[in-house]
Order: sequence, then C-alpha cells, then structure tokens
Amino acid sequence: MNLRQILYHQLHIGAKTDGRLTLLNIVLVWVIIAAVVTAIMSTEVEFDRQWHDEILMAELVFGIVFLAEYAARIYAAPEHPGPGSALSKRLRFMLSPLGVIDLVVILVTFAPIFIANAAALRVVRLLRVVSIMKFGRFTAATKEMAMAIRERSYDLLVCIAFAFVFLLCGASALYWIEGELQPEAFGSIPRALWWAVITFTTVGYGDAYPITSAGRVVGSLVAITGVLLVALPTGIVAAAFSDAMQHRREEIQKALEKARERGELDDEDTREDT
Amino acid sequence: MNLRQILYHQLHIGAKTDGRLTLLNIVLVWVIIAAVVTAIMSTEVEFDRQWHDEILMAELVFGIVFLAEYAARIYAAPEHPGPGSALSKRLRFMLSPLGVIDLVVILVTFAPIFIANAAALRVVRLLRVVSIMKFGRFTAATKEMAMAIRERSYDLLVCIAFAFVFLLCGASALYWIEGELQPEAFGSIPRALWWAVITFTTVGYGDAYPITSAGRVVGSLVAITGVLLVALPTGIVAAAFSDAMQHRREEIQKALEKARERGELDDEDTREDT
Amino acid sequence: MNLRQILYHQLHIGAKTDGRLTLLNIVLVWVIIAAVVTAIMSTEVEFDRQWHDEILMAELVFGIVFLAEYAARIYAAPEHPGPGSALSKRLRFMLSPLGVIDLVVILVTFAPIFIANAAALRVVRLLRVVSIMKFGRFTAATKEMAMAIRERSYDLLVCIAFAFVFLLCGASALYWIEGELQPEAFGSIPRALWWAVITFTTVGYGDAYPITSAGRVVGSLVAITGVLLVALPTGIVAAAFSDAMQHRREEIQKALEKARERGELDDEDTREDT
Amino acid sequence: MNLRQILYHQLHIGAKTDGRLTLLNIVLVWVIIAAVVTAIMSTEVEFDRQWHDEILMAELVFGIVFLAEYAARIYAAPEHPGPGSALSKRLRFMLSPLGVIDLVVILVTFAPIFIANAAALRVVRLLRVVSIMKFGRFTAATKEMAMAIRERSYDLLVCIAFAFVFLLCGASALYWIEGELQPEAFGSIPRALWWAVITFTTVGYGDAYPITSAGRVVGSLVAITGVLLVALPTGIVAAAFSDAMQHRREEIQKALEKARERGELDDEDTREDT
Repeated sequence: MNLRQILYHQLHIGAKTDGRLTLLNIVLVWVIIAAVVTAIMSTEVEFDRQWHDEILMAELVFGIVFLAEYAARIYAAPEHPGPGSALSKRLRFMLSPLGVIDLVVILVTFAPIFIANAAALRVVRLLRVVSIMKFGRFTAATKEMAMAIRERSYDLLVCIAFAFVFLLCGASALYWIEGELQPEAFGSIPRALWWAVITFTTVGYGDAYPITSAGRVVGSLVAITGVLLVALPTGIVAAAFSDAMQHRREEIQKALEKARERGELDDEDTREDT
Repeated sequence: MNLRQILYHQLHIGAKTDGRLTLLNIVLVWVIIAAVVTAIMSTEVEFDRQWHDEILMAELVFGIVFLAEYAARIYAAPEHPGPGSALSKRLRFMLSPLGVIDLVVILVTFAPIFIANAAALRVVRLLRVVSIMKFGRFTAATKEMAMAIRERSYDLLVCIAFAFVFLLCGASALYWIEGELQPEAFGSIPRALWWAVITFTTVGYGDAYPITSAGRVVGSLVAITGVLLVALPTGIVAAAFSDAMQHRREEIQKALEKARERGELDDEDTREDT
Repeated sequence: MNLRQILYHQLHIGAKTDGRLTLLNIVLVWVIIAAVVTAIMSTEVEFDRQWHDEILMAELVFGIVFLAEYAARIYAAPEHPGPGSALSKRLRFMLSPLGVIDLVVILVTFAPIFIANAAALRVVRLLRVVSIMKFGRFTAATKEMAMAIRERSYDLLVCIAFAFVFLLCGASALYWIEGELQPEAFGSIPRALWWAVITFTTVGYGDAYPITSAGRVVGSLVAITGVLLVALPTGIVAAAFSDAMQHRREEIQKALEKARERGELDDEDTREDT
Repeated sequence: MNLRQILYHQLHIGAKTDGRLTLLNIVLVWVIIAAVVTAIMSTEVEFDRQWHDEILMAELVFGIVFLAEYAARIYAAPEHPGPGSALSKRLRFMLSPLGVIDLVVILVTFAPIFIANAAALRVVRLLRVVSIMKFGRFTAATKEMAMAIRERSYDLLVCIAFAFVFLLCGASALYWIEGELQPEAFGSIPRALWWAVITFTTVGYGDAYPITSAGRVVGSLVAITGVLLVALPTGIVAAAFSDAMQHRREEIQKALEKARERGELDDEDTREDT
C-alpha cells in the first residue's frame, strides 16, 4: 500500500470490517474530546483568566491537528470507491456535510487566536462547542437509530398528543384555580404550562407549586399521570433503540463473516472475535 | 362523485382505508392547532395587550373556518352509510357528541369578538381551550387505548390501592413525627399527604420536607418505595398501550388487504405501503 | 339457605367463585373508605372545628356498622368449612388477625365520642386511620404478591446492597468535600446520606445540594447512577407483580371452570364471563 | 474434620454448594454491618460527644473480631484447593486484594483508640467506612454483573454519548439565553451543565432554573428528552442485570445437581431445595 492508501484506511471509519477504530481514529477522537472540553471550560471567566495563554496554545494545537486531518482527508479522498476523477472526489468530500463541518471547526478553532475583542471572543468560544459535530463521522448508530424511531413515529405522536392534552388540562385548571392567587406562576396558561411540564416530568424545581387544596389535588393528579404517561414514549424509544442496536450487531456479524469467507481477516483477528 | 360525496370523503376520517388523513383533514388539524395556540397565548395579559387586534382577527378567521366545516358536515351527513332519511341523518350528527362540540367551539370562538366586559372575556378565553376537543374526531387510538386499559383495570386498582395505603402510612408517620414542628407542612394528614404524593412521584418541589432524623428515615422510605411502587402501574399502562398500538396496526393492515382484494387501491398506493 | 348461610356467603370474600364482591361486601368497602376519609379529614384542625358534630355523628354511624358486621361475622363463623364445634369456630375467628383488627377498629371508631380531652382525641383520631387495615380481608392479591417478591428476595437484596454501597460512597465524598463548607447539610455522613437518598431517587427537594465544582461532579454521578441503579429493583418488582397477577388470573379461571363443571354457575353468569 | 478444615468451611463463602452462608459468615456479615453503621454515626459530632466511650468500646470489639477473623483465615488458608505449600498459600492470601482489605480494615478500626488528635481522628473515622469493602467477599454477583455490563458497553457508550451531546446543546443554549441574566447559574457552560444534568435526571433541586420564555422552552425540551433518553441506559443495565442473575441461578442449580449426583447432599437438604 502506498501512503495515500494507508492514510485512507487509517482515516476512514468504515474501512475496517469489524467496526473497530483505527489508531489514527482513536487519536482524533481524543483530540476532539480535548477540544470540546477546552471550549466548555474557556467559557468560565475565572478559568479563562487564570489559564488564558495555555488555552490559546491548546487551541493552536487543536487547530493544527484539525487542519492536518482536513488536508489528509482531501489528499486521500480519491481512494474512495466508486467512479469519478481524483479532483471530483476531492470536491465532493469538501462539499459534503462532514467536509463543511471540518472546515467550520478549523475556522472557529483558530479564530480565538486572532480575535482580541471580548464580546466577539465570547461568541466564537461558544461556537467552538460545534467541534462535537465532528463526532458525526463515528456514529453509524445515529442513522439506524433515527430510522428505527421514524418507524414508530405514529406511536410517539399519539403519546405526545395525549401528554400535551393532559398538560393543557392541568395548566388550564391551575390557571383557573390559582391564577389570581399566584399571578407570577399561574397568571396565564403559558406560565401554568411551565409548571405543568416541570411537574409532569417529575423535575419539580419548586419555583411554582399550588398552595390551595383544589390546586394540590390537580397537582397530585398531574404528577401521578405524568409518571404513568411519560413512561409510554420511554418504552417506545427504548424498544426502538434496542432494535437498532440488535440490527447493528447483526450487520457487523455479517460483514465479519463475509470478510472471513474472502480470507481478508487473518487468524489472529478471527480468534479474537469468536 | 358529486360535491356532497367529495365533501363527505374529504371530511370523514374513516373514509380512507389506509388510515391516512385527507387534504381537508390536514388543513383542519392545523387550524385547530392554531386556534388552541391562540387561545393559550391570549391568556397572557402582556401578549393580549400587544396583539389584541391580531388575536381578534385570528379568532374571526378560525370561527369562520369552523362554521364552514360545521355547515359542510351537516350538508354531507346524508352520505353516511346506514338507513334513514337525509334529515334524520343530519339531526343525528347535530345531536352527536362531536356535533355538539363543533357547535360549542364555534360559539366560544366567536364570543370574544362580541364581548367587551373584561371578566367575562377572561372566562370565554379560557373556555376556548376546549377547541382541542375537536381532535376527538381524529383519535381512533383513544377508543382502543381506553379498552386496553379497562381490561387491566383490576391490576391498576390493586397497584393504586397499594400505593395509597403506603402514602397514607407515610403521611400519618410524618404527621405524628413533625406535625407540631412544622404545622404548615405536616399539621394534618391531608397536608402530609400532599408532601407524600410529591415525594412518592419523585417530583420533590421542596415546599415541604422532613427536618428531624426520624422524619428523614420515613421520608427516605417513602421516596425509595415511591420509585419501586410507581413503576408497577407504569409497566401495566405501557403494556396496555403497546397492545392497543399493535392491535391498531393489525386492523389497518387487514383493511388495506381487504381493499386490495376488492381492487379499491391503485398500484401506486400499494407500492407505497409495502 | 337459612339466614346464617346467606350472611356467611354475603360476608365471605372467597364464597363467590368468580372473585367478584357480594352486595354486602361492596357496601362494607364503601363504609371503610368513608371511615378512612373521615379519619384523614378530621386531623385538619380547621375542618374539625367547622364540622365537629357531623364528624362525631359519622363516626357513630361507622362504629355501629362495624359493630354489626363484627357481630354478624361471629354469628356466621360456624358456616366456615372444616371440623370443629360452632363455639370453637367463633373463638378462632375472634382470635384471628382479621378478627382482632375488626375489634380494634370498632374501639377506635367509638372512642372519639366518649373522649373530651383534646390531646387524647388527637391520638385516637390518628389511630382511626388503621380502619384501612380492614381492607386486608379483600386482598387475595397481597399474599401472592408477597410470595412472588420473596422468591426474588436475593436479587432485590443484591440491588439494595449495590445501591447502599453507592449511596455511602457519594455521601462520604460530599462529607469530605463540603462537610466544612455546609455543615448543616453535609456536616456528617448521616446528614450527607439524606442528601444522597433524595438525589438518588431523583426527588431533589433542594434543601441540600453541592455548591463546589468537585461536589457537583460527585452530585452528577450520584444522580445519573441513581437513575440507572434504582431501575434495577423496579424491574424486579414489576416482573414479580406481573407474575403474581398472571397467577391470580389463572387461579380464578380454574375456579370458574371447576364451578362450571359442577354446574354451580347459572347460564347468565357464564355468558357474562366469557 | 479437624479444626482447620471446619474453620475453612465456615469461613469460605464458596464452600457450601448451594450458595447459602455458613453460621460464621452470617455472624461476620452482621459485625461488618455494625462496624459500618458505627463508622457512619460517629461522624455526627453531636452523637460522637454523647456516646464517645461506647463508640470506642464498640470499635475495640469490632477490631478484635476482625483480627480474630484475619488470624483464622491465615491459619485455614492451607485448606484452599490447589498445589503449593502451606506457607505459600498463607502468603498468597495475605497479598490478595481481600487479604489486604482485611488488614487495612483492622488498622483503621483500631486507630481511633490510639489517636487523640481531633483532626486526624476525623480522617480515620471517615476511612473506617471502607469496612464495607469486606463485603466484597460475599459478592459472587459483582463479577458476573460486571461481565454482563461489559458485553453491552458499546450500547451504553452510544447512549451516554447521545445524552452528553444533548446535555451540551441544552447547556450551551441556556448559557446563550440567560448567561447574562443569571450569571451565578448560567454564566458559563460548566455551570449550565450542572443545571442540565440536574434537570435531565429529573432531580430538579431548584437552585438553578430558567426564568425567560425562551429559556423555559429549552428547559422543557431538556426535561422531556431527559425522561426519554435516560431510560435507554436504564433498560440496557436492567437487561444486563437480569441476565447475570439468571446465569447465577443456573450456576447454583448445576452445582446443586452435581453435588446430588455425587451424594454429597443429605436428603434433608435436597428436600428443602426442590
């Protein structure tokens, strides 16, 4: 294999038949994690003041790594299977969603080094959290998951409609009962809906709660029904997720068996997987 | 098909064999949603003051749409299968629950335009939330759901009885332990029951909580048992819902197959569904 | 059937083969519910002052009903199947747990009428909540439920041990981190355990929460692990409950079939059940 | 059997084929529980002052019991099956993780008796909570559980990644919307993440919550998605736990059957188990 082929196999997530990450991919995953953590921490004013130079240095390093990765992906793009000239394959990568994300991440990673204006810096720092979208490349699971959920979208919609009607009943009741007593919390249905959602999901911040007997009876009903009704979409989503995971395991198993038949996997790999 | 037949097929939810909504139904669903959202938002005093004229205009439009729908339904009622004269079928629709709801929604939608008195307006605006009951027409799922839950009503009753006995024990214990220490929160069993329900469902507003060691031990037991016991009806409801959804999918499948046998569906539809 | 036989069949919950309640049983269930609700409401000082005479009157009525039921049970006890003289059967009922509960409930129901001392009255009123134990007679489900859970007691114990070790780790960590910063909330491990339980069960009153970064990381871990670990016993209890309910339904089915074979059920009943 | 054999069979958890604890093991379990409870309670300053001498006395007793157990384990170690001299088997036990824990627990149990310095005493008392690690010996379940979860680690990782990306989105949104309005709660992404975790897990302390309309819409989405997404790993962990328990029961059943074939179990035991 020449350098371009090695680079392509190291960079491309689907290149290994058994679904494991290559060494280069593992390095990239850790750099992305480090970049996201740095982006998160740098929004804390106290932390930013104390480690200002180190953060800038880290951002420079992350930017260079991401730039090198982007250049390598463009260089190795012609190795992608399918027809088309080297140039058209490179352009296709650069215009693909993942290619555009790569470029945007490089720009927002380098930006803090050149920007001195504090307000602009704050926005750029927040934008740097998008680095996490680079993970999109590693989520074969996302697509299957989305498909599995779409299949059950009717069930989910029925559940959410039921839940919303119930929320609206609860919120209207409390607007009626305590609207004049606690105008801040229940003075309108949108306000009462905030209370209803927070009670329904059993979060219960305590910023709004009924204080009359009638309101508490309604509140109890909302809390109990919340526990019962919220469980329905949960069950649906859990079943969909479990199906998608099962599907994925079978896909990997099939790919492994095919590869073994073609003799692509050496004995060591086979022994490890069985 | 003449106009009356077209109207009937466009309006009637069960007229399409595959359970999908007709174009007119989709328009009506969105108008109902818009009417409910307007009704909710108009209870917010600030919002109402700023957009007063626009809200009145929207209510006028919604009222006209609902009036036209009501007139069309009465006009198309004779197309309903079964014996009886055109007049008797129209009267039967007007006296059916869905027909009465339609009329009430029209009245409360037009009312804000003619009412100037602020207190009366507030009541009417709240009542306009009943527009959501027009959705009753689209919920074939509701009936099956209700039946599935009724079948397991004994299990649910046992669960709720267990939960209530436990809640009463917890509330009595805290009334006994902290009744004199925190009279506002635990000064009577009904008050302690409010605390018990909010702890049991893990909402936990924080408006009432035990402060003594004994009370905290009881509170911990109530919280832990809550997590365990509340899960039982959840499982029952989730299983009932899943059964009802499965049942519904089979019904639609059967209806589709029957229609295909009779050659009612054209090839395009069949290809889409399989 | 003579009067004693009719009374026995009306009073005894297992006398009807299909598990439904007799007319007399339904009346008794409603009187017990009314007695418990009265007992609960009478602990609210405001309510007690306003309806004092009505509560006393209701308690007198409940007491007379319970006394009559107790007398009828003693009178009808000899109808119970099995060997032994009428007197020994009556004594056996009076000394059985349910017989003793019946007597205690009668005493605490009549007590408020004869007691004038406010402090003593408060205790007696609280004790009247035990009326709910009379429901023990109607819970064939309780026994099966308890057996089903006992079978899985090892699994439950392992779960609870895991959860407790985790709670202790969390509580110790916060005692270490914030013990000196918030002595009221985390000044000792027992205090920190209260916080840990309330976080673990996702109740979250908000009377105690970490304020340092390290404390918040530990708190996040406790909350996330709580959601994961608390679900385990929930699953076990739910499965045990579902088994017990299934078992009960099969038992009733068998009893019905046996009764049908012996021709004990008339045609009307059979038609209703199938 | 000589004394050393009896001691080994009494001490060793796996020595009894049916998985039940020996008498000596039961005594040890209760002493460990008592030691942990004493360690927990002694961190409460009020309690420690009042019962200071009794706590010291109890610690002395626990220390002697643990010392005797440690000595007995070393003495009985040569009974362990497998090759090796008595001395090498004893050394192997002393250097095994469980042997080291035993020694450490003895040291921290005796320490409070010799230490007078209050600050040092506080640290030692906290360390005494490690006594709970002695339970490690009784958890054959732990190992199987850990293995079952490791098998599904990919599913869990995907879930946690999804949840984290969602948390980050919610936290970034609120940092953007309310960062300047509530700097204490949402002034940086790490702070907003604390709010997001506490809302996501439905704990909801109420120390931080959105107050603007936009913030509340985001907060509602985080709460609802939390209920849905947190359920996924829960389902995975519950299934893994259920598998591990099933596996364990089968193992015990097999061991019992083998023992019965070899005639090791007397009739009384067999009758009890079937």
